[in-house]
Amino acid sequence: MATLFTKIINGEIPAKFVHQDDICAAIHDIQPQAPTHILIFPKKEIVNVAGADKQDQSILGHLLLTAGLIARQLGVATEGYRLVINNGKNGGQSVDHLHVHLLAGRPLTWPPG
Amino acid sequence: MATLFTKIINGEIPAKFVHQDDICAAIHDIQPQAPTHILIFPKKEIVNVAGADKQDQSILGHLLLTAGLIARQLGVATEGYRLVINNGKNGGQSVDHLHVHLLAGRPLTWPPG
Repeated sequence: MATLFTKIINGEIPAKFVHQDDICAAIHDIQPQAPTHILIFPKKEIVNVAGADKQDQSILGHLLLTAGLIARQLGVATEGYRLVINNGKNGGQSVDHLHVHLLAGRPLTWPPG
Repeated sequence: MATLFTKIINGEIPAKFVHQDDICAAIHDIQPQAPTHILIFPKKEIVNVAGADKQDQSILGHLLLTAGLIARQLGVATEGYRLVINNGKNGGQSVDHLHVHLLAGRPLTWPPG
């Protein structure tokens, strides 16, 4: 059973990609919590950070570097941004396919939820 | 001029380490925002994700894998957790040395700040 993000990558669910490469893809969150709210996810179906292992290390690093790249491309890097990864129930994870939230365009408050 | 986290790694500022290896270290946040609130930072002085480049990819991946490891060791992995990386002013970054916040022990709300 493919995840929501795999269906998006495969074109089964239409989406406008902000970024796509061999390792990951990025789209706008459909329920944005900031003026800029992007989701970056690996093409490999890793459930979350807890479900990642040593062989996924380069994918995890690539997700963060790609978040930085997208922030620069969208012009929000100078003002700053927050990256959030939810893992499991207490984290508020809603899709069981690892994804990095990139939030920007307003001051993010503390605590982070 | 060494960062706060470099001084902690070097023992100039005392801290109780939750984890330490060749690449990174972890301590408890002194202003915890959840029952479990850990900071994981690289020994290399990377300013933030925006200041990381391709050669830092394995370090970034290692930080996330280590966050997952610490969550398991502290017994919060099953209930879940949130990882947060603040970048620059809008992100609320307070120390100019990349660090991952690991928050757990309560349901984290949405939006994440």
